[in-house]
Amino acid sequence: MKKVINQADDVVEEMLEGFRMAHPGYVRALEGTTVLLRNDAPVSGKVALISGGGSGHEPAHAGYIGTGMLDAAVAGEMFTSPTPDQIIEAIKAVDSGNGVFLVIKNYTGDVMNFEMAREMAEAEGISVEQVVVNDDVAVEDSSFTSGRRGIAGTVFVHKIAGAKAEAGGSLQEVKQMAEKVVANTRSMGVALTPCTIPGSGRPNFQLEDDEIEVGIGIHGEPGIERKKISSADDIAEELLQKVLKDSVDFNDSEVAIIINGLGATPESELYIVNRYVQNRLKESGIKVTHTYVGEYMTSLEMAGFSITVMKVDEEMKQLLDAGADTPAFRR
Amino acid sequence: MKKVINQADDVVEEMLEGFRMAHPGYVRALEGTTVLLRNDAPVSGKVALISGGGSGHEPAHAGYIGTGMLDAAVAGEMFTSPTPDQIIEAIKAVDSGNGVFLVIKNYTGDVMNFEMAREMAEAEGISVEQVVVNDDVAVEDSSFTSGRRGIAGTVFVHKIAGAKAEAGGSLQEVKQMAEKVVANTRSMGVALTPCTIPGSGRPNFQLEDDEIEVGIGIHGEPGIERKKISSADDIAEELLQKVLKDSVDFNDSEVAIIINGLGATPESELYIVNRYVQNRLKESGIKVTHTYVGEYMTSLEMAGFSITVMKVDEEMKQLLDAGADTPAFRR
Repeated sequence: MKKVINQADDVVEEMLEGFRMAHPGYVRALEGTTVLLRNDAPVSGKVALISGGGSGHEPAHAGYIGTGMLDAAVAGEMFTSPTPDQIIEAIKAVDSGNGVFLVIKNYTGDVMNFEMAREMAEAEGISVEQVVVNDDVAVEDSSFTSGRRGIAGTVFVHKIAGAKAEAGGSLQEVKQMAEKVVANTRSMGVALTPCTIPGSGRPNFQLEDDEIEVGIGIHGEPGIERKKISSADDIAEELLQKVLKDSVDFNDSEVAIIINGLGATPESELYIVNRYVQNRLKESGIKVTHTYVGEYMTSLEMAGFSITVMKVDEEMKQLLDAGADTPAFRR
Repeated sequence: MKKVINQADDVVEEMLEGFRMAHPGYVRALEGTTVLLRNDAPVSGKVALISGGGSGHEPAHAGYIGTGMLDAAVAGEMFTSPTPDQIIEAIKAVDSGNGVFLVIKNYTGDVMNFEMAREMAEAEGISVEQVVVNDDVAVEDSSFTSGRRGIAGTVFVHKIAGAKAEAGGSLQEVKQMAEKVVANTRSMGVALTPCTIPGSGRPNFQLEDDEIEVGIGIHGEPGIERKKISSADDIAEELLQKVLKDSVDFNDSEVAIIINGLGATPESELYIVNRYVQNRLKESGIKVTHTYVGEYMTSLEMAGFSITVMKVDEEMKQLLDAGADTPAFRR
């Protein structure tokens, strides 16, 4: 697999350097760490939001740093959780005395390391709360996970909990809102190709020229089924039904959706999927209030996409509509 | 090549339908055409901007419809110019009596069809001007082109000429500004993989597992050289020097840059390239005032990237900073 890199060991550091140079109006480095901070952190009077995880999911997580979303992002190595010592530095840097909220995707390493950092911060007198995002309905327990995995629905947590914090919500209010997003968000993905971690020299799995893997994870963890590729509409239908028939009652509801590209899928194909999903939801009596199509949570150069559906109420819609100004998400 | 599509013949229509459904606040369809219009077109008192070309370059061109950029985008089939009858419909739909400005990438089919539509519109009494964008320094004349090709630098024309029009510039003023952008913008790209047009069944060219093609076009037209892949820094250096040593005098100047992904290249790799380009320009005494990293002008699922450098003056910087609100570009 050809890559536009220098040394594999330098990928994350050089990526972060290039990111900072592209977005000096948004972020600054926390020296000696892989943490990027909102330029004006700590923001006085505001609960601070931190997310992060393994690299390779860009624009997650640093792309969501800015007004109305994250105060810091902690980058691990490719597909590898950041260490607690990095996370604790981020917590200390963003806390303005109003507490810090951690948005954690449900992977064993992330949960362990973020929780360890949380305990260390609390021992130093900083109030820290967290949510663990597990929107992927595909599988229970996986190579990286106990329970369900956190995927693109995490971006809704960043947006809605971030807006709640920006509006002056307390740490408990931000936590309750994040939990509401998690409780109402379901996702599922499909891969057409694998991806290759820099330096590993080979793809993380193999698919034949006419095969797809349904229910794939964002690190290439196994899904539900490997099968022959069918039409865009058939694939979208399968994912959408799994999402809708999970444990959230979407009947007669209003929803926000993400049609998320995993890295190499052309935007044209994502819009073809969006067309099907919108038509199908309308037929089902479900009203789409907010639509996001693009690359929000990727898996390096994997081809494929995921569908996320979040049931929304009036407050969630208002928080989606609230201003956000970050490199990867603006409104 | 696996694709998330239904019938190959329906790709453009279904993509446009999905795009409209995702962005009802920005665009509406011009019934019976492949034209998407700014929701409030025709905008009274404003010169209207139209761009377009073959599909497969998403988010170009429909992604740039909105306040401060385009009033309409005309979509052709994949990598194929739209026809004059589609373009003339777009011209008629956006003209508010202040004239219409066409942003054309320099491909034989596009130039011919847009100019034919322009003549038809002028015969109906509509004032129409145009610019032909030819920022790609790689090759003179190519499979689709007489002269140099238009690639990612086109987005700077949309932004700056669009801002000029939004600010009340006359048709001649918008034209002069667009010509200034074209005169000061140079780009060059590299491919790591080919792409496949839906329905064609095979890639538009072949590259070995360790090969890159330097100077590739956004339709896979041949570049300057096919060679072994080297480091990100080496590849970036080669493209950057070709761009800087072309006919624009960048010495001691201020510039805006685009590090543009061609479709399948991870954002992490684009930021690694950005890091090198920023450092190199700084060493050369060139000041970067605006940086854009991401997928602005793609080539389906081609892996690779292009570097665009535009020399800017005070007015161009102000026009880059002016508000723009479109699905793919906001500030």
